[in-house]
Amino acid sequence: MRNQLGKTISLGHGSGGKLSHELTGNLFVRYFNNEILAPQTDSAIVKVNRENLAFTTDSFVVDPLFFPGGDIGKLAVCGTVNDLAVSGAIPLFMSASFIIEEGFGMDQLETIVKSMAEESRMAGIKIVAGDTKVVDHGQCDKLFINTTGIGVIDPERIHISTGANIRYGDKIIVNGTVGDHGVAILSARESLSFESKLETDCACLNHLIADVLKKTDKIRFMRDATRGGLATVLCELAADKSFGIELDEVGIPVKEGVKGMCEIFGFDPLYMANEGKAVIVVAVEAAGDVVSLLRKDPIGKNCSVIGEIVEDHPGQVVLKTEIGGKRIVDMLAGEQLPRIC
Amino acid sequence: MRNQLGKTISLGHGSGGKLSHELTGNLFVRYFNNEILAPQTDSAIVKVNRENLAFTTDSFVVDPLFFPGGDIGKLAVCGTVNDLAVSGAIPLFMSASFIIEEGFGMDQLETIVKSMAEESRMAGIKIVAGDTKVVDHGQCDKLFINTTGIGVIDPERIHISTGANIRYGDKIIVNGTVGDHGVAILSARESLSFESKLETDCACLNHLIADVLKKTDKIRFMRDATRGGLATVLCELAADKSFGIELDEVGIPVKEGVKGMCEIFGFDPLYMANEGKAVIVVAVEAAGDVVSLLRKDPIGKNCSVIGEIVEDHPGQVVLKTEIGGKRIVDMLAGEQLPRIC
Repeated sequence: MRNQLGKTISLGHGSGGKLSHELTGNLFVRYFNNEILAPQTDSAIVKVNRENLAFTTDSFVVDPLFFPGGDIGKLAVCGTVNDLAVSGAIPLFMSASFIIEEGFGMDQLETIVKSMAEESRMAGIKIVAGDTKVVDHGQCDKLFINTTGIGVIDPERIHISTGANIRYGDKIIVNGTVGDHGVAILSARESLSFESKLETDCACLNHLIADVLKKTDKIRFMRDATRGGLATVLCELAADKSFGIELDEVGIPVKEGVKGMCEIFGFDPLYMANEGKAVIVVAVEAAGDVVSLLRKDPIGKNCSVIGEIVEDHPGQVVLKTEIGGKRIVDMLAGEQLPRIC
Repeated sequence: MRNQLGKTISLGHGSGGKLSHELTGNLFVRYFNNEILAPQTDSAIVKVNRENLAFTTDSFVVDPLFFPGGDIGKLAVCGTVNDLAVSGAIPLFMSASFIIEEGFGMDQLETIVKSMAEESRMAGIKIVAGDTKVVDHGQCDKLFINTTGIGVIDPERIHISTGANIRYGDKIIVNGTVGDHGVAILSARESLSFESKLETDCACLNHLIADVLKKTDKIRFMRDATRGGLATVLCELAADKSFGIELDEVGIPVKEGVKGMCEIFGFDPLYMANEGKAVIVVAVEAAGDVVSLLRKDPIGKNCSVIGEIVEDHPGQVVLKTEIGGKRIVDMLAGEQLPRIC
């Protein structure tokens, strides 16, 4: 195993990209060894007697803790709510566990806790369990938060997290501009100021997704495009499958400010993190309805059909560029921007 | 709020003692504000349609990562399994979320993951969801692990975590010697070597507890005595109640080596952490049966009746000392030994 994984942990092992997948596959999935963990979906789907539950965990180590449009608390709630929602589940309960550095400001903590309370209230999820650990000054960087969520899922929607029902010709939709969160963190970290305000897109998607699922039973797959961005989610989806993905660069919504920042820093918006964006694969006949519905909601109004499921190049994501060329979109090996969430 | 909580976070806020309770009550319970979180039991009891679930979370920041008799991985599994088990639930599923410092040794991580895999297999709980974050060197101390668990609970056992059915005269049992885990960490940290091997008591209690619950329906309360030790659990139990607790010092099993270490460092074994000890309150008529059953199991063989629920001094824990005196056992204000779990 050591040959495949290297001798020490690198930042890339937490990137959500190739190294992350190797670590997860060769270490966690290998040893924990069970059929529920193996598919590596956003939420595990577990059966407890008569109910099907979605169950998901995330630790948040974002730096800085406060950034344009959000803070670690809001992020910690939205991240877990979204992981449940894109699995087709209704988010119900959440735990919140804090690792705090000695000397951390109580008023900052209060602001963050308030933000979690407000966000969870709006999402309709209850924070019912918690834990607090404090470590000596210098043993963690300010504050880390773990949230773990439980949702209930209709058995007829279990395929949504695996994409088992995906067919050639299905349309791929994203509910708005990509890369906003990554760029908001980058600008906060670099203390950059711009004329255009670059805010995180951090938002709970569960109400919007519930509306979509009420409207149509033709949703074939959903996932939120967080660490590693849109590109990583689509590469994960296509990997080892009998279909390919064709993306249309013209269709992918990116804010001008995000484009600009990415150019300056040499980043690609397709790989920049989002915290309020879902990739939705839907049967072609229902795509129009889904777009119309998304457009009515503030967090869906910039939605766009960005590509489709194709028979060609199975396992691969191919981008039709604005100038008419084609290029393969691959998963990043390492880390574009550490501590993004 | 600031007056009650101070301006910054101190180690005591993570101790499990008085400062922890103030932080939890005045910040988390206040803002997250719901009837499930409010009782602050080890597991939240939530209803998902037709099923009652126990749900619990813990972050583990123990230092060092490896210590006599265990490591952070074993601890992270047992801690969450035990929180579910003492609530009267059957542990089913667990998430595991890792925050890793860049440069951490892959073989150490593999050892820890193996240890989690082995412990969870023995306990019969499946690790079905996970997350990995990597932070720059110096931004966390080696490795932190969060585990969050789900169990299923028979509605007739929900009273076990709150102690709602406790009656005067009920007996208090502990399943073995107290303070072992705290002393094992202390000795590992101080690089002390003793003739007597001081190992952690870290163990999953769910099978033992399942046997107890099968044997009798007279269990009135259970909780595992982790951070803050036996004293803290009993103080929490008695607080604001119409009953008192009388402890008999002679009955409390403590290893000679643990006593010795505590004397050297000026600690009290009653406040030393355990990771495989449950406090069990049982109706007097069933106490003998429970003791007999516990004695048959390696992790229960040193069990002992350590006290009882009394009508006197409601809200207080009083210890009858070996020399015949009485003293009030109070919750510690601050932190006896940081990063114990």
